[in-house]
Amino acid sequence: MPTVAELSRERVDHRFKSLPPDAEGRTLGELAAERRDLFEGGFLTPVLTLLAPALEHNLDQLEHYAHDHRLAFAPHGKTSMAPQLFDRQLARGAWGITAATPWQARVYRAYGVRRIFLANQVVDPAALRWICAELTSDPEFRLVCYVDSVRGVELMDAALTATLDVVVELGVPGGRTGVRDEAAADVVADAVAASRWLRLVGVAGYEGEVPEKTEDAVTAWLDRLVALTRRFDAAGRFAEADEIVLSAGGSAWFDAVAKAFEPVDGLSKPVLRLLRSGAYVTHDDGHYSEITPFHDRVPAEGSLRPALRLWTQVVSRPEPDRAFLNAGKRDAPYDLGMPVPQVIRGADGSLRPADGLRVTKLADQHAFVELTPETPLEVGEWVGLGLSHPCTSFDKWQLIPVVEQDGTVTDFVRTFF
Amino acid sequence: MPTVAELSRERVDHRFKSLPPDAEGRTLGELAAERRDLFEGGFLTPVLTLLAPALEHNLDQLEHYAHDHRLAFAPHGKTSMAPQLFDRQLARGAWGITAATPWQARVYRAYGVRRIFLANQVVDPAALRWICAELTSDPEFRLVCYVDSVRGVELMDAALTATLDVVVELGVPGGRTGVRDEAAADVVADAVAASRWLRLVGVAGYEGEVPEKTEDAVTAWLDRLVALTRRFDAAGRFAEADEIVLSAGGSAWFDAVAKAFEPVDGLSKPVLRLLRSGAYVTHDDGHYSEITPFHDRVPAEGSLRPALRLWTQVVSRPEPDRAFLNAGKRDAPYDLGMPVPQVIRGADGSLRPADGLRVTKLADQHAFVELTPETPLEVGEWVGLGLSHPCTSFDKWQLIPVVEQDGTVTDFVRTFF
Repeated sequence: MPTVAELSRERVDHRFKSLPPDAEGRTLGELAAERRDLFEGGFLTPVLTLLAPALEHNLDQLEHYAHDHRLAFAPHGKTSMAPQLFDRQLARGAWGITAATPWQARVYRAYGVRRIFLANQVVDPAALRWICAELTSDPEFRLVCYVDSVRGVELMDAALTATLDVVVELGVPGGRTGVRDEAAADVVADAVAASRWLRLVGVAGYEGEVPEKTEDAVTAWLDRLVALTRRFDAAGRFAEADEIVLSAGGSAWFDAVAKAFEPVDGLSKPVLRLLRSGAYVTHDDGHYSEITPFHDRVPAEGSLRPALRLWTQVVSRPEPDRAFLNAGKRDAPYDLGMPVPQVIRGADGSLRPADGLRVTKLADQHAFVELTPETPLEVGEWVGLGLSHPCTSFDKWQLIPVVEQDGTVTDFVRTFF
Repeated sequence: MPTVAELSRERVDHRFKSLPPDAEGRTLGELAAERRDLFEGGFLTPVLTLLAPALEHNLDQLEHYAHDHRLAFAPHGKTSMAPQLFDRQLARGAWGITAATPWQARVYRAYGVRRIFLANQVVDPAALRWICAELTSDPEFRLVCYVDSVRGVELMDAALTATLDVVVELGVPGGRTGVRDEAAADVVADAVAASRWLRLVGVAGYEGEVPEKTEDAVTAWLDRLVALTRRFDAAGRFAEADEIVLSAGGSAWFDAVAKAFEPVDGLSKPVLRLLRSGAYVTHDDGHYSEITPFHDRVPAEGSLRPALRLWTQVVSRPEPDRAFLNAGKRDAPYDLGMPVPQVIRGADGSLRPADGLRVTKLADQHAFVELTPETPLEVGEWVGLGLSHPCTSFDKWQLIPVVEQDGTVTDFVRTFF
């Protein structure tokens, strides 16, 4: 089994699109030890970078937020798919890592993650066989996944050969997966009780799918989730569980989750109140910067900083009001808004704000930039872009240099997509 | 230097998200030799597949189209970034492979591609140093790239240490990169002539950026490209070239390119009429199925078949008119339309058309499907999706099983993004 430390022994080569060609053959660890400058060290553009201080800050913020609110934390690993970041989250007390799919759980297991919250129903026999093999071979491994239908329970039970902990997923009409109401939850819980291999250990859901995105609507749904947990417990449905799992929480409403979960006590078993926010780790300069609870609802409880920046180069300015950067859909997210030019690095190494530049469109390998004719921007200059949506930023990069405030590259984060 | 053959010696592990967990540790070649069934062989969903007969058909079609129209062919490799597919394209007589960026060219070189048409201005000193090192170390290596500005020429000349062949890129006002008119082309060509290291060998551009997407407008622009080539030649601008490169051609207008380029003869040097279409290799079930010239303008000259299919699994059907597949933005393209459900595979292995299913939205790891309440679709069933846009399909997968008509997996194609 590989370890996170072994990732630094991977070699610089053509798999990693922005690494310096003159470093080919070195290990990533050796290259990191050279402490090259991002701009002068031979890195190719475009290059996605992780800003070390912002990353550290964000890891710190959610660690403390979860701790202060008595929440266990299983940050969603789908965001980064980076075992090195999982390691840092676990070192800061995270209970485990959340996954959306079995292939993600496989990556986590390859790097020794001991507790996985798989926030989906898993009905694939091949995946279930793999889960059973992992559970059987490592007594310390714990995996909890969703159930939301009788058919799902049947398919799972037919494929399993070991006990699997499950939580009933509560959804919302018009939303994503999960049972639509309490009656359906009972039917699924009955099916779990009647199964050979499934053990009901809790209730979970995702408040981000509540159609009306107001604090009242989200809180009302979270209260339903808590009430379902209490009712299941009162009905003895968690009799076989060692602890009761209650989980919710993306990046937009973790304050509401904390508030709703905090009073949950006095159940028949200890309660694991599990928060799953994932995007916080890098935050962003777009969608997530606006929806974080730290922005307007609970600014006194913490803050997040954008930790991703995509550095690109101007390859053409064929018209006074139009320039082209060498990054496109392969390099930058575009599902929750266009990248935002933040800073320009001139040929002499000086930095200036990218005022007046606007990315209007991405082609596969180009960003279309509109600017006023009098704005200075020369072919060859580097432009740093802020991004919107951490998940679709990470998934375009197999390897991301970690950069200090002064531009020194001190580490590399490997992702697996 | 790795070879394409060595790719089959890579090991099955967590890097490749859909491969059977029970094959872990085998080489890809060994797994291919097992000829597993895609559905029963332990592959995890979602899994993007390449349909072997369609791929073969498409390779065949453009090989013959280019040959019949006396076009040299440098298929755009950005589409697949798959050295195994480049090998097949080269074996069918392709002149070389087109790249959009230096990192793509690095991948090509790692797998021994001898001729690269880099369809962009390259002004990054690190990239230019790498290009010079490649040119110097391998006398058979040829690379041609764009110039579209005096500043670009200056930056290139300052960083180069070997002769680099360039073509002036002709653009179009309101379009992407490239000089906007003939006067600007002259100025750039003058700069090339005055440089130490650049050698002007031709003219190129991309007709897909002509704002008015009609045959007349595209043809008018192609005629300008040809006229510029003739004028440059008449002015003795290609005196140092061994042959004159004239290049255009994406996937939507290769018929117009063939028509415009065919009569180009009688220049001072042999002419390399270079077509660059890339998406044809897999074609698609969306955008490209509509814009290919074979669709309506020249159906008698060939045809293309969609060669990509994304197999997903139904993980939830929480409401009668709403189901969820386990594939999302990490797995399927969404920039030129949503994936299209084509076929459902039932628990008994039978296939039926996915009539009445519609993907309305993708989350990171889920597809939202609307369907009529009476449409049978059960949790656990597999749904095959047609995709729109080959480029943003390939770039979500590091490894793609190649599947025969009967569902047997006989090979794996590795991509590098």
